Amino acid sequence: MIKQKVFPTYGVFPQVAGWLILGGLFFLSNCSAPPVQETVKISGFLRSSLRTQLDSEKLILSIPSSQQYGAHLLYLTEEPHQTGSPRNYKLAEYVRDCFLEYGLENVHFHDTPALLGYGRSLLVEMTEPEKKRLKMAEDPYPPDKDSGLYADPSVVPYHEYAPSAEITAEVVYANGGSPEDFAELDRLGIEVKGKIVIMRYSNPYSYRGYKVYLAESRGAAGAIIYSDPQDDGFFRGETYPQGPWGPPSHIQWGGIVYDWFGFGITPFTFHWQKQEDGTWVEGPVRDRALPRIPSVPMSHEDASEILRLLKGPAVPEGWQGGLPFTYHVGPGPVKVHLKVDNVEKIALMRNVIAIVRGTREPDKWVIAGNHRDAWIYGGLDPSSGTAALLEVARALGTAVKQGFRPRRTIILANWDAEEDLLGGSTSWVKDNRTKLLQDGVVYVNLDSAASGPDFDGGSTPALADFLRETAKAVPHPDIPGGSVYDHWIKSSKSGTAEVAEIVGATDYTAFQENIGMSCIDMTFDGPYGVYHSMYDNYFWMSRIADPGFRYNVTCAQLLALILWRLANTDILPVAYSNYAKSALAAIEEIENMAGPPKKISLERAKKAARRWLKEASAWEKEARKFLDSEASLDPNRASEVNSLLTEIERAMTEEEGLKSRPFYKHLIYAPQPTYRTELLPRIFEAIKAREWSDIPRYEEQLVQAFDSASRLIRVASRQF
Amino acid sequence: MIKQKVFPTYGVFPQVAGWLILGGLFFLSNCSAPPVQETVKISGFLRSSLRTQLDSEKLILSIPSSQQYGAHLLYLTEEPHQTGSPRNYKLAEYVRDCFLEYGLENVHFHDTPALLGYGRSLLVEMTEPEKKRLKMAEDPYPPDKDSGLYADPSVVPYHEYAPSAEITAEVVYANGGSPEDFAELDRLGIEVKGKIVIMRYSNPYSYRGYKVYLAESRGAAGAIIYSDPQDDGFFRGETYPQGPWGPPSHIQWGGIVYDWFGFGITPFTFHWQKQEDGTWVEGPVRDRALPRIPSVPMSHEDASEILRLLKGPAVPEGWQGGLPFTYHVGPGPVKVHLKVDNVEKIALMRNVIAIVRGTREPDKWVIAGNHRDAWIYGGLDPSSGTAALLEVARALGTAVKQGFRPRRTIILANWDAEEDLLGGSTSWVKDNRTKLLQDGVVYVNLDSAASGPDFDGGSTPALADFLRETAKAVPHPDIPGGSVYDHWIKSSKSGTAEVAEIVGATDYTAFQENIGMSCIDMTFDGPYGVYHSMYDNYFWMSRIADPGFRYNVTCAQLLALILWRLANTDILPVAYSNYAKSALAAIEEIENMAGPPKKISLERAKKAARRWLKEASAWEKEARKFLDSEASLDPNRASEVNSLLTEIERAMTEEEGLKSRPFYKHLIYAPQPTYRTELLPRIFEAIKAREWSDIPRYEEQLVQAFDSASRLIRVASRQF
Repeated sequence: MIKQKVFPTYGVFPQVAGWLILGGLFFLSNCSAPPVQETVKISGFLRSSLRTQLDSEKLILSIPSSQQYGAHLLYLTEEPHQTGSPRNYKLAEYVRDCFLEYGLENVHFHDTPALLGYGRSLLVEMTEPEKKRLKMAEDPYPPDKDSGLYADPSVVPYHEYAPSAEITAEVVYANGGSPEDFAELDRLGIEVKGKIVIMRYSNPYSYRGYKVYLAESRGAAGAIIYSDPQDDGFFRGETYPQGPWGPPSHIQWGGIVYDWFGFGITPFTFHWQKQEDGTWVEGPVRDRALPRIPSVPMSHEDASEILRLLKGPAVPEGWQGGLPFTYHVGPGPVKVHLKVDNVEKIALMRNVIAIVRGTREPDKWVIAGNHRDAWIYGGLDPSSGTAALLEVARALGTAVKQGFRPRRTIILANWDAEEDLLGGSTSWVKDNRTKLLQDGVVYVNLDSAASGPDFDGGSTPALADFLRETAKAVPHPDIPGGSVYDHWIKSSKSGTAEVAEIVGATDYTAFQENIGMSCIDMTFDGPYGVYHSMYDNYFWMSRIADPGFRYNVTCAQLLALILWRLANTDILPVAYSNYAKSALAAIEEIENMAGPPKKISLERAKKAARRWLKEASAWEKEARKFLDSEASLDPNRASEVNSLLTEIERAMTEEEGLKSRPFYKHLIYAPQPTYRTELLPRIFEAIKAREWSDIPRYEEQLVQAFDSASRLIRVASRQF
Repeated sequence: MIKQKVFPTYGVFPQVAGWLILGGLFFLSNCSAPPVQETVKISGFLRSSLRTQLDSEKLILSIPSSQQYGAHLLYLTEEPHQTGSPRNYKLAEYVRDCFLEYGLENVHFHDTPALLGYGRSLLVEMTEPEKKRLKMAEDPYPPDKDSGLYADPSVVPYHEYAPSAEITAEVVYANGGSPEDFAELDRLGIEVKGKIVIMRYSNPYSYRGYKVYLAESRGAAGAIIYSDPQDDGFFRGETYPQGPWGPPSHIQWGGIVYDWFGFGITPFTFHWQKQEDGTWVEGPVRDRALPRIPSVPMSHEDASEILRLLKGPAVPEGWQGGLPFTYHVGPGPVKVHLKVDNVEKIALMRNVIAIVRGTREPDKWVIAGNHRDAWIYGGLDPSSGTAALLEVARALGTAVKQGFRPRRTIILANWDAEEDLLGGSTSWVKDNRTKLLQDGVVYVNLDSAASGPDFDGGSTPALADFLRETAKAVPHPDIPGGSVYDHWIKSSKSGTAEVAEIVGATDYTAFQENIGMSCIDMTFDGPYGVYHSMYDNYFWMSRIADPGFRYNVTCAQLLALILWRLANTDILPVAYSNYAKSALAAIEEIENMAGPPKKISLERAKKAARRWLKEASAWEKEARKFLDSEASLDPNRASEVNSLLTEIERAMTEEEGLKSRPFYKHLIYAPQPTYRTELLPRIFEAIKAREWSDIPRYEEQLVQAFDSASRLIRVASRQF
């Protein structure tokens, strides 16, 4: 079923990286620009570089347009486009052709085979105390041309990687299916063994795959995960088609791979084996990263039929949702008959890659990525981001055509198989690991572009100030004369521009966790209750969330500017003093988490972090002074400084990796399997496992890392 | 309609207080009791008093019984018994006869005329966009014999003191009807003038009368207050008859007098005038403490009809309730036709008063009160408390009969008209003000006795430790061998026995706020969603909340013991160091509340509070040492010390009272009109009114009060 590729692809990117060095030959020509105003400064730029930068920024910001953006989005969302589907390969060609048209270089596919899953047919019915077949489909709304999808009976909602199975069992309700929720069921004496566990998708997000895993590991026969109206439906506000929240029939599709069991290590083909003739067959033992019990997603309209008849104890505090009756835990008397027919196969994940080669530091890569594959139409997730990436490509291409070429190389990546496995980005990182370790500067991720006006940016701490400063340079459509930063402050509850720490769960994961690259993840938030459902489509985006695509275009402008600055600064705008502070806070947090009864004290690590903080603060002051002066900087020395600065983030990794997840090599940040934040993951996991004797070694790794960072800063400061 | 009283009543209690002095002649006889164990101590008792106290406590605790308690409760809840109803006068006789039977002394009625209101007929219908008459009645459940009430068409739910009126108007939803909610409507540009404002009864409780007042003062045409399922219905847990929460049709009746306009000052007859022939007629100008717009309470079943059709903007965050659709603010298109026919009349509030006269300090009064009047059956509120008070009376009477007579006089009061006006308790306090100022020791209030197992005690801070200690002496039915205190700790979220500060809203208000008496307010909590509805009845209590009346009997035991200890201690168990600490915390809180922009600093008051804290701590240490020694105490000196200690709470009042509420004379505590806590009310209100120049004078009053307290303690300590 996989369409033949029509453009040469490169399995391993380093094969083509060599010729990027050619980029250094290009010259700038900006003779007639007006003098730069005295007051304008951008961190990381010498005064002598400012005029060109400001001229080019003006151009960059002027390119993204609502009209073009809308045309991209319409095309991208015209049909469902899951990983491995004909339509998604077709869209890879569209992205490639845009990149080419906009003048980007080295445009190519990067393909990797992977195991993918799809729903084929489905029956869910209640058999006790009443017999009722559940709808398991989303309702059409005729003015939305895309909403008749389920008229085709081959369209079934599913959890990717859930095995096919037929079971009938009593139902137990387990709230959000978190570890705490299952512990509460234990306290209540409710057995889930042999039962179908119904859980709600939760808010804040908690990974659905871990819910199923917890049910499976306690012997459950099957799992149902439904969208409670309290989390994303009428309880939150107006529902589709009147508003952005989920209507009664909306269903959240999703993958449930047990990724903590082998992410980045297990082959993407899992236990499938390649035959002599190039075909793939399933191996004898199902990989342990794949679920073994059937699981389905469900609307609250269907779930309501089950939950309203469930008996047993009334739910504990906090478990009641938004349906109009008292929730009960069960088990029974409700019995459900589940007949899940899913299919799995090997197909190619296809990334589309393009570059804008740099001049002075062409070896250095500033990367931006967004995934293309969608559960269904992907109006917001991810096609809004893909459309934005294309507008960024157009802006960068235009700048190059008009004579502005960046100092460093910019890479644009359109990933595949994010929804399934974070597969496209991870496979590319693995294939380019050596190069990235050496020359990766920053990775900027854009999954969904904009569901509303509220900028939401996360990053490794060294980039937080950079993000704030760049947000000041992009106009916000809701504030006449005001910037994204102004709106950020205004819409934040704390009245400050908070930059979240990030720990994985989308395509920056491999960059940050495995390579130790500085990362940014960004979006513009608004109310959004149709995640992974049919209603996340063009109608939703263009009529409800962002008519005129004002926020989405703003997002494209900001992303373009972020890349343009990161690719052009004389000195990288990284503030490691913030990183050292975050590390200190993380150490204190984990000390509190540990005790009592067992109290741990990480004084040595704290002292090393304070040394780092001191070195970094001094350096930042010195660098600011230097950049503000009229001094010029030897280009080779600048490159050396930037390499040293890049190296610092790398120092925050440790080759050994986490005990049970060796791909995760970062010392400060990791996601838990639920995707909650796990600070200082090695120590975090040692505490959880009560492996106290390992902690001194992990503390020593922190000391080494912080001292390396201090040393690198000292070396850098000698370059001025 | 008011039944003639058949027992002599005394309008002013001091008329009979004189002969209490006779009580001192009674002698104890306890020759054969075993020696007191060395380890047993009770704060406030000399070692030489302990044996008798422990013997009598054992007896006191043994009296309250489930059987007797249940018999009282069944009789009390047999019929609705609002203030002024024939049944409520009948119950006054029942209480009187019990007091007499149990051997209490000076049993009498205390009557005061008051304006009372009742519903006569009611029509509520939606006229737009659909025509529908709302049910405005609670559904019967045949196994509950009391639940057929609304079959009688003369039974209509109502808000007491809402005027009769007929209106038709568009509807606006105003969430909980708090000042913040109306401010939010302003921000949204939603006009309530001429509209019917629908608001929810809220959780935590906010006074319904103030909701109506805010709507009225913004020009609303009428008000509806409904019970949202998120606050007390299915969202919270199982509903009647399966559980304790409110079923869809339950309606919370209630009074809505604007009590902050004249509480304790305005006559209870308001603008009604007594004629020569003794009849009452309404005066020409309706008192401003009475509402001028019609208002009705409503079930969520009926409210759902209105709310589901309301349009306009979706509600702001936090306003969505538990009904299964997105709430909207309006106005319209829903129009409601309200036809309210309420009747008002003057009738007698009838308190039932009895005493157990004291021996050594017969002039000193330890008082316990509970109200008798109920909105309907009053299963929990207040008949559970009345039944408990009767069991306390039986326990005290038995103790006296067996030769134990308390050191101080105990007064038991069964108040009337709490639901309407806090009328019975307030009128009695006014009639006995001089005596109470001189000799009132402590007032202990019991409104509802027990809806569940969780002890919930509040008090003026000086009594918090006493409350904790006494809770240790009463067994808790859920913990074999454990005490109420043990359960208190276990069921509290903080793991400590928290004693709330109290500010009024039930019958202790006049005692604390006007007299400055130390107060305790107590109950045993459990889930309770039928407040002020027909379902708060015997069935609810005996089948759902407390089968076997285990918690209610425990409550009676604890109340009896509290009274018995307060009436018997050699030295009153008041810890003013806690009071000083609370005062300091209150000052710091109000300093924070004030600024910025206007920052106030109350350093002088804080210093005075610290002086008080020091004196009190020293005294408490000294007193403990003295009581633990084998020293004996001259009875006259003990009385002198106790008078001084009582005087300290009085020092926390100021005769002038609050600017707009002169009956409220307490310097530290008052309720806001919403019944939220208002700490340091004079300063609180000056800040709200921006009357900054008054604050120094109010601070001076605090300084004086705290210094008076310090001085009284110094004088007391000279008595040892």
